[in-house]
Amino acid sequence: MSVTTQTIHELPTPCALVDLDRVEANTARMAARAHALGVKLRPHVKTHKCAEAARLQIRDHFGGITVSTLAEARGFIAAGFDDLLWAVPPSLGRIPELVTLNASARLDTLCDHPDTLAALAEEAARQRRVVGVWLEIDCGDGRGGLYPDSEALLALGAAAQGDPWIALRGLLTHGGQSYGCVGAEAIQAVAEAERAQIVEAAARLRAAGVQIDEISLGSTPTLSHGLDLTGVTEVRPGNYVFFDAFQAAIGSCELADAAFTVLATVIGRYPEKGTLIIDAGALSLTKDPGPRHAEADPGYGRLARLGPGGALIFEPALRLEALSQEHGVIRVEGPWPSDDRWPVGSRLRVVPNHSCLSAACFGEYQVIQGEAVIAQWRPHRGW
Amino acid sequence: MSVTTQTIHELPTPCALVDLDRVEANTARMAARAHALGVKLRPHVKTHKCAEAARLQIRDHFGGITVSTLAEARGFIAAGFDDLLWAVPPSLGRIPELVTLNASARLDTLCDHPDTLAALAEEAARQRRVVGVWLEIDCGDGRGGLYPDSEALLALGAAAQGDPWIALRGLLTHGGQSYGCVGAEAIQAVAEAERAQIVEAAARLRAAGVQIDEISLGSTPTLSHGLDLTGVTEVRPGNYVFFDAFQAAIGSCELADAAFTVLATVIGRYPEKGTLIIDAGALSLTKDPGPRHAEADPGYGRLARLGPGGALIFEPALRLEALSQEHGVIRVEGPWPSDDRWPVGSRLRVVPNHSCLSAACFGEYQVIQGEAVIAQWRPHRGW
Repeated sequence: MSVTTQTIHELPTPCALVDLDRVEANTARMAARAHALGVKLRPHVKTHKCAEAARLQIRDHFGGITVSTLAEARGFIAAGFDDLLWAVPPSLGRIPELVTLNASARLDTLCDHPDTLAALAEEAARQRRVVGVWLEIDCGDGRGGLYPDSEALLALGAAAQGDPWIALRGLLTHGGQSYGCVGAEAIQAVAEAERAQIVEAAARLRAAGVQIDEISLGSTPTLSHGLDLTGVTEVRPGNYVFFDAFQAAIGSCELADAAFTVLATVIGRYPEKGTLIIDAGALSLTKDPGPRHAEADPGYGRLARLGPGGALIFEPALRLEALSQEHGVIRVEGPWPSDDRWPVGSRLRVVPNHSCLSAACFGEYQVIQGEAVIAQWRPHRGW
Repeated sequence: MSVTTQTIHELPTPCALVDLDRVEANTARMAARAHALGVKLRPHVKTHKCAEAARLQIRDHFGGITVSTLAEARGFIAAGFDDLLWAVPPSLGRIPELVTLNASARLDTLCDHPDTLAALAEEAARQRRVVGVWLEIDCGDGRGGLYPDSEALLALGAAAQGDPWIALRGLLTHGGQSYGCVGAEAIQAVAEAERAQIVEAAARLRAAGVQIDEISLGSTPTLSHGLDLTGVTEVRPGNYVFFDAFQAAIGSCELADAAFTVLATVIGRYPEKGTLIIDAGALSLTKDPGPRHAEADPGYGRLARLGPGGALIFEPALRLEALSQEHGVIRVEGPWPSDDRWPVGSRLRVVPNHSCLSAACFGEYQVIQGEAVIAQWRPHRGW
C-alpha cells in the first residue's frame, strides 16, 4: 500500500475511487446486523477482491471469507486469510489446484453433482489431504444447486459423508432471486424462502442420517432486509461493501451509501445535441443494464458532481444513456443550462449499476478519505 | 512470448483463446479490401490491445495504428510502433502525458472543442513539441464530433491551422450507427453517409482556406460492406481482427470467422431445470446485450463444442441465457438429450457478443493454431 498526498482533483481519469469512510460504515452495519441475527458473517470478497477491504468486513467476526475464483483464493491465502469458501462448483480441471491450496489454508468448495464429488474425493485421496465440501441448494434462484426435496440431494449427502477424504461442512444457498425484487417487503419474502428452503434441505438430510453442521445463505438484498434466520449459522453477503445504483434502486441502500465510484472527465460538450461525453465507457463501467425492473430507463449509472469533502452531489438532470468502449454519452435532460456548468475538463463521479463488475475493470483502486487519496488497493483479478 | 506444448484440452478455464489462423485470414481480408478501395489502413487496436495482433493488421500497409487509451499508446510505442492516433478526445488532465509521448513517436489525437484545442496548444508550446490533431466530425453516429455544416467546425479548423504548436492532420469520423443495422444494404447506406458527411466537411473547410490532407473514417461494418471511398484517405476498422456474435448477426462476417472465444468448463448439469452451468460469467464475457435489434433473444454469446483441429461446432440447442459474476447459465432448448453429451467437466467455447469487451477481461490470451497452444499474448490494459 503506497501512500500519496494527491486529492481526487489531480487523479488521472478514468479511475476507480473507494471511499474508505463509506466502506467502514457499510461493513460495520452488516457486521452488526449479522450479530443481531445471531449468525456468523463469512463475507464474499468478490466485489473488491482485495485484502484491505476484506479485513474491514471480518472485523468482529470469525475471519472466514467467501471467494469466487482460485485467483482470489491464492491472493487471500497469501495475505493471511485461513478459512475460505470457494462458492462456485469447481471445474474438474481446477480441482488439483484447489486441493493443493488446502496445504496452506482451509479452502472449502461447493458441490451439487456426483461427478464433481467423485473427482474431489479422488484428487483429495491422491494428495492425501481432506477437502471441505458444502452442498449447494437451489432455493428458487434457478442457477446452481439441488432442490431441497430431491432424491439427488440425499444421495449426494450420503456419498459426501461416506468418503474419508471429504469433510462435509454443511449446506449453502444463494437467494439471487432477491435481485429481481423492489422494496423491503418483496425482499423479505425471498429472504424467508431462502431460509425455509435450506432449513428444509437440512432437515431431510439429518433425517436420513447425514450430519449437517453449517447452514449458509445470503445475498446483500436478503441480508439487508431479512428478519429471521432461525436455523442458519453463516451468511455470505458481498456487494454491501460498495453498494451501487442497482442496490439503491431495489432498496438495499441509499445512493449516498455507494462507496465505489468511477471518476471521469468531461471530454465532449454538445449543447446542439443535448449531450456531454465523459472518458468512462464500457471498459470502466461495464454494460450491466441496471435495475430495469425497478426503473424505466436507468442508464448505465448515476452521475454526481464532486462536492466538498468528497461528497457526492447527484445530478438528476444527467442520464448516462450510452456507453462505447471508452466513451460515456450523457443526456442532459431538459433545457441546456445557461451557465457554464460541466465544462470540458470538469469532473464527474459515476455510481455504476453494478459495482462488482465495474470494480473488476480496474487494476487498482484509489482509496479516498474526503478528497484525499490515502492508498491504492490492488484486486486479485483473473482466475 | 512464451511457447508451450499445451493443447486447448489442458488449459485451465475460463480462458481467452485467439485462433491465429482466423486472425490471419481476417486481417489479410481487410488489408486487401483497403487496397481495393484505394485507402490506407490504420487499424484500431482496441479490440486486442497487443502488439502481436497489430503487426498482423498492418502487414502490407503503412504501419499506422489507432489506439483508444494512453496505456495502449505507451505499450505500442514501447513495442516499436511510431505512428499512432488516439481516437478519443483527450481529457485535459491527460494532455501533458500525450504531448510527452510525442517525444518517442508520433501520437496524434482528436479534437472537437475549442477548450481542448487551447489546452493542447498550451501544453505543446510549454513542452516545445508540435502535436498532431484530427478534427472529429459527427456523421450521424451522435456520439462525439462536430456537424459538417456547423460554424463551430470552421472556427475550430481555422484555430487549429493558425496555431504553431498544432499540426492539423485532417478529419476523422466513425459511422458507429452501422452497429444498429442488419445486412449489407443497410450498412452500405450508413457507409455512404459516413463518406459523404466527412467529404462535405472537408470541402467546407477547404473553401474557407483550411488545409485538410487526411480524411479518416471507418467501422468494421462499414468497411466490410462499403462500396466507394472517394475522397477518403485512411480507414480505421478494429473489431474485424476477432469479429464476434454481434458482427455475425448484423452481417459483417460469418460466425465461423470468430477468432476470439472464451473456453469454459461445464460445472453444473441440471436435467430437471433444463440447464447447464459453465465457469464463464460476466467477468469473462461481459453483459453486452448483443444484437437485440437483429435477433429476438441472442443471449450472451454463441456456444460451440470443441471440434477436431480447433474447429467450432456450434450448438444451436444451447442458449447462454444468464450470466452472474462467475456463472454462465445455459438453457438447453427442446427435450434433454438421452445421451450423456455435455457432462460435468466437458468443455465449450463461447463466441462472445462483443469481442472487444470480452477480450478486455483477460490479462493474457492463449493463442492457438488448431488445438495447439502456441503463444500467450498480453494486452495493454488500463488507461
